[in-house]
Amino acid sequence: MEKFRQFVVFLGAAALLGSLSVVIVVIWVLHWRGGLAWDYGLLEFNWHPVLSTTGLIFINGFGIIIYRLPWTWNIRKPLMKYIHAGMNIVTFVLMVISLLAVFDFHNSKKIPNMYSLHSWIGLAAVIMHALQLLLGLCTFLLPCTPTFIRTFYMSFHVGVGLFIFGMSVTAAEMGITEKLIFSLRSGSNTTLPYSQSPPEAILVNTLGVFILLFGGCILWIAIHPEWKRPPEHLKENVGGEDASILNKTNVSAEIGNENIPEGIERLRHLHFEDVGQRATF
Amino acid sequence: MEKFRQFVVFLGAAALLGSLSVVIVVIWVLHWRGGLAWDYGLLEFNWHPVLSTTGLIFINGFGIIIYRLPWTWNIRKPLMKYIHAGMNIVTFVLMVISLLAVFDFHNSKKIPNMYSLHSWIGLAAVIMHALQLLLGLCTFLLPCTPTFIRTFYMSFHVGVGLFIFGMSVTAAEMGITEKLIFSLRSGSNTTLPYSQSPPEAILVNTLGVFILLFGGCILWIAIHPEWKRPPEHLKENVGGEDASILNKTNVSAEIGNENIPEGIERLRHLHFEDVGQRATF
Repeated sequence: MEKFRQFVVFLGAAALLGSLSVVIVVIWVLHWRGGLAWDYGLLEFNWHPVLSTTGLIFINGFGIIIYRLPWTWNIRKPLMKYIHAGMNIVTFVLMVISLLAVFDFHNSKKIPNMYSLHSWIGLAAVIMHALQLLLGLCTFLLPCTPTFIRTFYMSFHVGVGLFIFGMSVTAAEMGITEKLIFSLRSGSNTTLPYSQSPPEAILVNTLGVFILLFGGCILWIAIHPEWKRPPEHLKENVGGEDASILNKTNVSAEIGNENIPEGIERLRHLHFEDVGQRATF
Repeated sequence: MEKFRQFVVFLGAAALLGSLSVVIVVIWVLHWRGGLAWDYGLLEFNWHPVLSTTGLIFINGFGIIIYRLPWTWNIRKPLMKYIHAGMNIVTFVLMVISLLAVFDFHNSKKIPNMYSLHSWIGLAAVIMHALQLLLGLCTFLLPCTPTFIRTFYMSFHVGVGLFIFGMSVTAAEMGITEKLIFSLRSGSNTTLPYSQSPPEAILVNTLGVFILLFGGCILWIAIHPEWKRPPEHLKENVGGEDASILNKTNVSAEIGNENIPEGIERLRHLHFEDVGQRATF
């Protein structure tokens, strides 16, 4: 695998930044925003940032690059498809609850729904994610779907998936901005307004920076064709001995490019024509 | 050129969405926000969204994909580098004025600077853009810079450039969110607050959607290796006759892949090892 160290650095950074984002959003709502409940009030609203960060950012992000992990390349593609689909189903379920929480809160407080740019882009991302999931299941997991339809739909699936992820990160940043402005107003119960940078504002701004960096790491991994999972037919063609080399990719690639076994060398000499034909280009 | 029609669709969409974004932001400040002036007040602040949308979004975006336009492939690379650098210098100048406007406004109104997530990510994007410009000028335009440094720095330059553009789009969306919340408050001079979706809110939310779609189009064009400018040495190697074919790329590619002349066919069979070695991977 080319530039294996760079891949590991970005993957490690994504894992760290993504996990920290989920932890920070939980600390935020528990420590500063009164906790979590299903009370049609502010505590129910708090499920919205927690579930959105966990679902549409963290799980969706790792769902995008799941095929890129060399440690999964000896797992058969159908199982990987189920894992990818499963992560997106979990994301969808979390987002349904996340939206219920915010609509419940708005309705009980007589706050209009869907007026902000955050709500426009956020809801569009969730609807597009649901359609993408449905079309993906029908196209790639229904055995009766013809191959030409799968090939035709693939680059669309990849492009729209990356765009939905970008929309999700953008919506998260706007959501953080909105929530800090609304909850840290001058004259509210807090000691300092947002413009005076209280500790809550510093922590949640940092959450926004982490989410953006996480998004950058995921997209950087996703757009590198040299980090793609080798196609199934090539894996099958290289036969038993070379196939076993795949299991050692992580070990061999850590040593450096010069020492990568010939089988892997052959696998990485893919043609540009392959670009856009597989799960993540 | 592969998938030439898709390229033209995304390029056309980017041109339309980018131009409309600049037009809408100008209409916004002239029609709803009192116009433009250098008065240390709200009219000076209005330069901030106008110049940021024009600079860090529109010109920076097209600067990223300028090498991708097949109509420029018969222009020598050094001239293209000057055009790319020139667009980024214009972006930098516009952003300096844009930041001056917002800092002047804050200071005259005793509003703290740099407290919001928008300001953190926006200023980071401008500083990173300035450093990227300086390093880019030293690396790619100073004749004395050794080739190995250019090669080493290139993938970093590309990756950071794309990330800065993503940061800029995100900062713009947060800036729109902030400005609409602050200027369309309940009890302000406007007839309706943001939550009641007055025409200004609908128009400026639409601006946010256009900027996001513009960002998606630019990044989609930038991450497609098959739309890269052919490397100089290949262009020189194909000689006079084939080089003249390059001038006809747009015509031939419009006909369809089957009819692309052999010279272009050879040029597009680039190897993965080229990825990250040139201006936009």
